[in-house]
Amino acid sequence: MHSDIEVLIQKISRLPGLGPRSARRIVIHLLKNREQIFEPMLMGMKNIYESVKVCPVCSNVDVFEDVCSICADAKRSREVICVVESVSDLWAIERTSCFRGQYHLLKGLLSSIEGRGPEVLMLEKLSERCRQNQVKEIVIALSATVEGQTTGHYIRNFFRGEDVKTTFLAHGIPIGGELDYLDEGTLLTAFSARG
Amino acid sequence: MHSDIEVLIQKISRLPGLGPRSARRIVIHLLKNREQIFEPMLMGMKNIYESVKVCPVCSNVDVFEDVCSICADAKRSREVICVVESVSDLWAIERTSCFRGQYHLLKGLLSSIEGRGPEVLMLEKLSERCRQNQVKEIVIALSATVEGQTTGHYIRNFFRGEDVKTTFLAHGIPIGGELDYLDEGTLLTAFSARG
Repeated sequence: MHSDIEVLIQKISRLPGLGPRSARRIVIHLLKNREQIFEPMLMGMKNIYESVKVCPVCSNVDVFEDVCSICADAKRSREVICVVESVSDLWAIERTSCFRGQYHLLKGLLSSIEGRGPEVLMLEKLSERCRQNQVKEIVIALSATVEGQTTGHYIRNFFRGEDVKTTFLAHGIPIGGELDYLDEGTLLTAFSARG
Repeated sequence: MHSDIEVLIQKISRLPGLGPRSARRIVIHLLKNREQIFEPMLMGMKNIYESVKVCPVCSNVDVFEDVCSICADAKRSREVICVVESVSDLWAIERTSCFRGQYHLLKGLLSSIEGRGPEVLMLEKLSERCRQNQVKEIVIALSATVEGQTTGHYIRNFFRGEDVKTTFLAHGIPIGGELDYLDEGTLLTAFSARG
């Protein structure tokens, strides 16, 4: 095997969820199906690599002209903005079709260990957007981790006094979750937030 | 999400071992790490796509000038040729470092259902190579499936009468295999081939 092929296998094996074995299978699959799979895959990746941009309004990553499809969608409410950590979270929320407002993507969560301060939250930009569009509610949809919740409360504090409500996603028992497998933290939160 | 991104996710999800979820994670990983991961990956794939060829001697798939690195390796014996079904099997054998001869890759196994006749075995070419290099042994390293064994016996019959020995890989209990989990066929073969 030529070293270039080995290098490609190594690169692919470092993708999330893959390892050396699955990377090898993928490369062999591509080599065996040069015209039907390898070429379209390469073209598709090249196209996405060249055309994907970061939306200047909400920082969503997408293929678009001026602003991303969500910001451009006239049918979506401009009065609610959902704060998410990353594109994957935005996609997850979009898959539920439960939210028809706009988004604000962070560049990361606050983390003193990794040296990320409030500048990654771009809250001045969000605040400006809230004023311009008379935004009524900011939904803070961050992970229920220490970093996520710290960041969430920082955002809530930032908007205290401004004319916009901040809400958090509810914590509790996940659907299908069995009580005796739940961690104590979740059970405690679910109890105190009962209603 | 733009439809081009969805199409790419779909393409990636059809790769062996992947599904829609892992494909989505991979695409997000690429989009998030545009310079460090997406670009080198794209360059690596493009390079392999453009430079990989099929070896005119053994049909191995590799990056090379005239013949593949195995055919070009002067240290490898020319007196033994190992018949394998595909590049993945060749790589598997190469990883064991137990074989230092040459290879002959089939274009597939004989299959009346899928309409593959003896032409996929390219035995005239193999026979010609045997004569030219005074090959002493053809190792038939095909899967222990019906198609693999049928093809193996076809190859053995083809070379009956010619001045070359054909051998099959041994069948038996795989290393680490527990007796009571083995299928009867394997156990039977292991018994009758005991020694």
